[in-house]
Amino acid sequence: MPGNILGERFVTMSFGESHGKCVGMVVDGCPAGLPLHDSDIQSQLDRRRPGTSVITTQRKEEDKVEIISGMYNGFTSGAPICMLIWNQDQDSGPYELIKTKPRPGHADYQAMVKYGGFADYRGGGRFSGRLTATLVMAGSVAQKLLQYSLGIETTAYTKEIGGITAGSIDLMEAKKNRYTNDVRCPDTAKAEKMKAAIMEARRDGDSLGGIIECISTGLPVGLGEPIFASLESDLSKALFSVPAVKAVEFGSGFNGTKRRGSENNDCYTKQDGRIITTTNNSGGILGGLSSGMPLVIKIGFKPASSIAKTQRTVDLLTGAQIDLNVPGRHDPCVVPRAPPIIECVVSMVLTDHALRGGFIPPVLNR
Amino acid sequence: MPGNILGERFVTMSFGESHGKCVGMVVDGCPAGLPLHDSDIQSQLDRRRPGTSVITTQRKEEDKVEIISGMYNGFTSGAPICMLIWNQDQDSGPYELIKTKPRPGHADYQAMVKYGGFADYRGGGRFSGRLTATLVMAGSVAQKLLQYSLGIETTAYTKEIGGITAGSIDLMEAKKNRYTNDVRCPDTAKAEKMKAAIMEARRDGDSLGGIIECISTGLPVGLGEPIFASLESDLSKALFSVPAVKAVEFGSGFNGTKRRGSENNDCYTKQDGRIITTTNNSGGILGGLSSGMPLVIKIGFKPASSIAKTQRTVDLLTGAQIDLNVPGRHDPCVVPRAPPIIECVVSMVLTDHALRGGFIPPVLNR
Amino acid sequence: MPGNILGERFVTMSFGESHGKCVGMVVDGCPAGLPLHDSDIQSQLDRRRPGTSVITTQRKEEDKVEIISGMYNGFTSGAPICMLIWNQDQDSGPYELIKTKPRPGHADYQAMVKYGGFADYRGGGRFSGRLTATLVMAGSVAQKLLQYSLGIETTAYTKEIGGITAGSIDLMEAKKNRYTNDVRCPDTAKAEKMKAAIMEARRDGDSLGGIIECISTGLPVGLGEPIFASLESDLSKALFSVPAVKAVEFGSGFNGTKRRGSENNDCYTKQDGRIITTTNNSGGILGGLSSGMPLVIKIGFKPASSIAKTQRTVDLLTGAQIDLNVPGRHDPCVVPRAPPIIECVVSMVLTDHALRGGFIPPVLNR
Amino acid sequence: MPGNILGERFVTMSFGESHGKCVGMVVDGCPAGLPLHDSDIQSQLDRRRPGTSVITTQRKEEDKVEIISGMYNGFTSGAPICMLIWNQDQDSGPYELIKTKPRPGHADYQAMVKYGGFADYRGGGRFSGRLTATLVMAGSVAQKLLQYSLGIETTAYTKEIGGITAGSIDLMEAKKNRYTNDVRCPDTAKAEKMKAAIMEARRDGDSLGGIIECISTGLPVGLGEPIFASLESDLSKALFSVPAVKAVEFGSGFNGTKRRGSENNDCYTKQDGRIITTTNNSGGILGGLSSGMPLVIKIGFKPASSIAKTQRTVDLLTGAQIDLNVPGRHDPCVVPRAPPIIECVVSMVLTDHALRGGFIPPVLNR
Repeated sequence: MPGNILGERFVTMSFGESHGKCVGMVVDGCPAGLPLHDSDIQSQLDRRRPGTSVITTQRKEEDKVEIISGMYNGFTSGAPICMLIWNQDQDSGPYELIKTKPRPGHADYQAMVKYGGFADYRGGGRFSGRLTATLVMAGSVAQKLLQYSLGIETTAYTKEIGGITAGSIDLMEAKKNRYTNDVRCPDTAKAEKMKAAIMEARRDGDSLGGIIECISTGLPVGLGEPIFASLESDLSKALFSVPAVKAVEFGSGFNGTKRRGSENNDCYTKQDGRIITTTNNSGGILGGLSSGMPLVIKIGFKPASSIAKTQRTVDLLTGAQIDLNVPGRHDPCVVPRAPPIIECVVSMVLTDHALRGGFIPPVLNR
Repeated sequence: MPGNILGERFVTMSFGESHGKCVGMVVDGCPAGLPLHDSDIQSQLDRRRPGTSVITTQRKEEDKVEIISGMYNGFTSGAPICMLIWNQDQDSGPYELIKTKPRPGHADYQAMVKYGGFADYRGGGRFSGRLTATLVMAGSVAQKLLQYSLGIETTAYTKEIGGITAGSIDLMEAKKNRYTNDVRCPDTAKAEKMKAAIMEARRDGDSLGGIIECISTGLPVGLGEPIFASLESDLSKALFSVPAVKAVEFGSGFNGTKRRGSENNDCYTKQDGRIITTTNNSGGILGGLSSGMPLVIKIGFKPASSIAKTQRTVDLLTGAQIDLNVPGRHDPCVVPRAPPIIECVVSMVLTDHALRGGFIPPVLNR
Repeated sequence: MPGNILGERFVTMSFGESHGKCVGMVVDGCPAGLPLHDSDIQSQLDRRRPGTSVITTQRKEEDKVEIISGMYNGFTSGAPICMLIWNQDQDSGPYELIKTKPRPGHADYQAMVKYGGFADYRGGGRFSGRLTATLVMAGSVAQKLLQYSLGIETTAYTKEIGGITAGSIDLMEAKKNRYTNDVRCPDTAKAEKMKAAIMEARRDGDSLGGIIECISTGLPVGLGEPIFASLESDLSKALFSVPAVKAVEFGSGFNGTKRRGSENNDCYTKQDGRIITTTNNSGGILGGLSSGMPLVIKIGFKPASSIAKTQRTVDLLTGAQIDLNVPGRHDPCVVPRAPPIIECVVSMVLTDHALRGGFIPPVLNR
Repeated sequence: MPGNILGERFVTMSFGESHGKCVGMVVDGCPAGLPLHDSDIQSQLDRRRPGTSVITTQRKEEDKVEIISGMYNGFTSGAPICMLIWNQDQDSGPYELIKTKPRPGHADYQAMVKYGGFADYRGGGRFSGRLTATLVMAGSVAQKLLQYSLGIETTAYTKEIGGITAGSIDLMEAKKNRYTNDVRCPDTAKAEKMKAAIMEARRDGDSLGGIIECISTGLPVGLGEPIFASLESDLSKALFSVPAVKAVEFGSGFNGTKRRGSENNDCYTKQDGRIITTTNNSGGILGGLSSGMPLVIKIGFKPASSIAKTQRTVDLLTGAQIDLNVPGRHDPCVVPRAPPIIECVVSMVLTDHALRGGFIPPVLNR
């Protein structure tokens, strides 16, 4: 399969460009019988949308989703579900310079080489963060399906921005208050500091990165397929499809590599008739299979590549190194918009494996 | 596809069990015309093999590979290449207890649930680190193919063990001396300390984790396919298939998330007629495509789960929490055996994308 | 992959329903740099459209296609190409009875069981012949690409209807005059008889089947991949996706099975420096690979299942066998509308294999 | 995926060459818990083996299969099942001439072009009928699984040889007596004539073709996935992977194309509480889905390409047309050896769809 397709049994195909007519997603393999409404998708899209707070780009994208196939009488029909957002008028003018003056941190030059100059570079084309809207479309369906059929819930929030780390967070608290602040961090004290840091970076024409933490509960034991479709494998594959993600770790991750085995191993015990572990350094995955414990992932986002500061690049026409000032309005930090994206991406992968493992039937009971 | 298959155009299918008759790999999609010898594979397998130094398990595995199809007159023929290692007599006795007393850190319990008790649990079965031999089989072919057709070279070495980090390393130096010490670290001074730490952990019946760094040079611009087959996506998918890997980062990775955009973006310049970047914080990947700069990945391994120390687990028969002492000889640290595995896994993915992108033709010129 | 996806490198995903909002197709893997216009697709769609002659259904479907992604400045950009036809108001009333009274020859009952009653049955839903419009969308792109990059031309025409068989046909003649008559048969004398037979069947409230012959010229030697992706394998897979197709044969086909090897083998000779065969009983495929000779396929269509005549079925509510009279306007014979569909389906498969085999590069020269 | 892989959830990968070290197959996706023995596979292999009667080639191939992975304690373990036959000493001498003098009806020339002269041409290499042994390996597992889990039974037999057609055959009779004669035809009177025709063709240094009929009973309603994974699509794809197959039809097939809809449609009725059709012209497939009626397929085999008669070909070295006499011992008709192959191929596809549709669980109850 070419690269715009993900999954084995819950399969998604993304299309559209940042400044083209639309962005869209088709999902094949969604079981019949899931009650689904545009609003299930719209609510997650709205959280991803820019222009909703002072710390995101002031571009206005209404991002109104339409389901144009795969539904009948309010339920999924078993047919492919196509979802669309029509792009609104975009100002592509500023992007003319990309053609010959590649922006540092972006794939302008690489795309030009790969597609022989035929790619639609306006707004970054297929490489734009705007395409994450397609992930949210498919992922919202997945998230609803997981909740509806298995009771699986996935919660992502900002864990760190610009080196400012949120304190230890109770999941119930996180669900409640992560959307009460602009940076989507459940540690509201640290959230203030993060916001201040973003404002400062913007003033400097600069940008910040950060870390999203994502937790899924309710997973059955045994999602994942050795060797190459380990749960970590397929989750990381999907997560690294999100622009700006440069690092992924499960459970204790890189920190765990500094520990001894006796500290990092999770011992088993029995609680309420269920086998559980007393710690969860594995992040809910052992041997590539879901362990039955909460899935815990940390995802690192590099600072946004689009900055107002002058940068050095090469003029492809002349070969000279030049100063580049990229016009346009950009996010000084994409992390606050990422939690719904990450929840959706994780849900897509969990759904695929739930279907592969027979945990969700091909038809849901009415 | 079920989980034992990886790739789109360079496709591998792993089979075999730790204590079964054999472990093996079939590769479909290797171009015809690659000169290949058992020794190309054996040399990498030998580096992975245990029993070669005081710090690895003292199990003896000869791991002699046989190519049983896909070759003709010393060249690959375009047909699937099947490679086999016949297992030698293994002592499966110690594993009887796994059936009812799952080991912390391993997938014993999860596999039992997933496969309904039918899985071959001896030596960890399909979840054993022994299966990495199959990755080395396919990956050695890939590594040779990349070198032969495109001049791509991939070098992995130990970057950190037990929190002891190697200093900054020149790639040429690393190639030369990483195999001159037991921990496979090119910083020979730190290598001594790492070795001492491993010996100490072993004395304590404990284990250590660490980090492998992997660098590939010679990549063309444009390997990778947006969105879901970004180079980071497919590399991470394959890397997380290696047992004990819990974290993967590209370029500046998690560190980069703490920087500002102006610090982390890599500016373009021209050198010897080639467009390059003056730094490489992206680790050679922009927008999911190879940038033309060296590919730099860090892979975090948790401390080996098999330890001699007493641990707590649940007796599945009685439901009681009990003390578990796992018999058998185990690696106190798997990191020193990992460099050839990582090189092979990375090479498999690069080969797949080189074929997908038309960088390697279906037949190599004689 | 679920069933709505076809191909490995030229991948298509079909969506939409007969009486839903739209029918559409996404193509991933089309090389960048192909000049493409809506009209390239529309011209083939127009030939498929009903209501264009007295012998097809009098339903009016405008079937105006829109390309909504994957294009930039008149060329394919390398991004997924999404194509859409918005359905016009359909009269779904007559289909209410399908829910409980399955039509003989259709999949009404099977779809109800498979999708637990959630499927959109109106107009046959996903099982409707209307979905062949999506095949034409993707296939028109493929057909243009093959012509543009390799000079491959594919020509399909009616070979037989209601047992009336066209005489031996010269390919040049066929290209010229197959669209000069309503049944799309290049043997114009037989075309008259076929048309008369169709008119008679319609008067009787009945339907006819027939055979399409499809010829592709200009194929390089070696398209196809043994064993399971033989050219015959992948062509037949795609062809049997067309509703009403029940038989496929290559070259001498079933007739060839009655011959001796000495009669059916095609002997080699050299002509104008090229190795060719003096006969083409193999239909251009040997060992699953294109032989370099014209590809010749015959595709058998059963008589249209929708007939006006009273038929027996079971009322699913009462369990009683009943008389069924299906209302609505239907094609008495779908064969005359099939040539563009078959050309498109064959082109999709040839394109996929041309890309797999490296015969078409990932970027076309400007 | 390259061409040596088939299936989505029951996936097979074939390897080996006619005159190489071995032929083999790996199956991934077989549920855990299937009792399986070498003999389950061997019994079908023995029926495929040549040298068992006067009408097959007198080559001796012991074809002793070994299962080398994926089993534990007599049950499938959920891990990939690798099966192997070691080739015995073959006389490759006669094949030297293929390199420069391609045999009519074979893919010698095409393979040489496709693989740039690197392919193993001895005995036809990957294009040899010998590779059907790998289909039998995987298919025997599938056949047992279908019988064990769903009660599906598949029966293939010779329907026609050299134009001599067996009369109408009762399935129970066919199961009983198809293996009582050398041509594997349940119409024993016609079987005698077929055998005589084969003997005559052999005397003339010539060969015959024929038709296999295959019937599967016990299918649930709803196997198959529209559009591209219709049951006909996937069955035909697999069937055309068998060397010498040039035509496939379902139910009334090409004959049905000559009928009217009112004759060819199968009307519904209720029998013993089940919805059935009173005829089965659809061959058990409607809209690409299994209808619940028996699956009926006819598969046309061209006359064997290897004949003793002198044929014309081109000497690739000189470019001259020459007389070719192919040495070696060959089957004058491959049809009698085909029934087990066809049963196996059909079973592979049915198993894949039974798994995809959730009809077989990932673990079979002990």
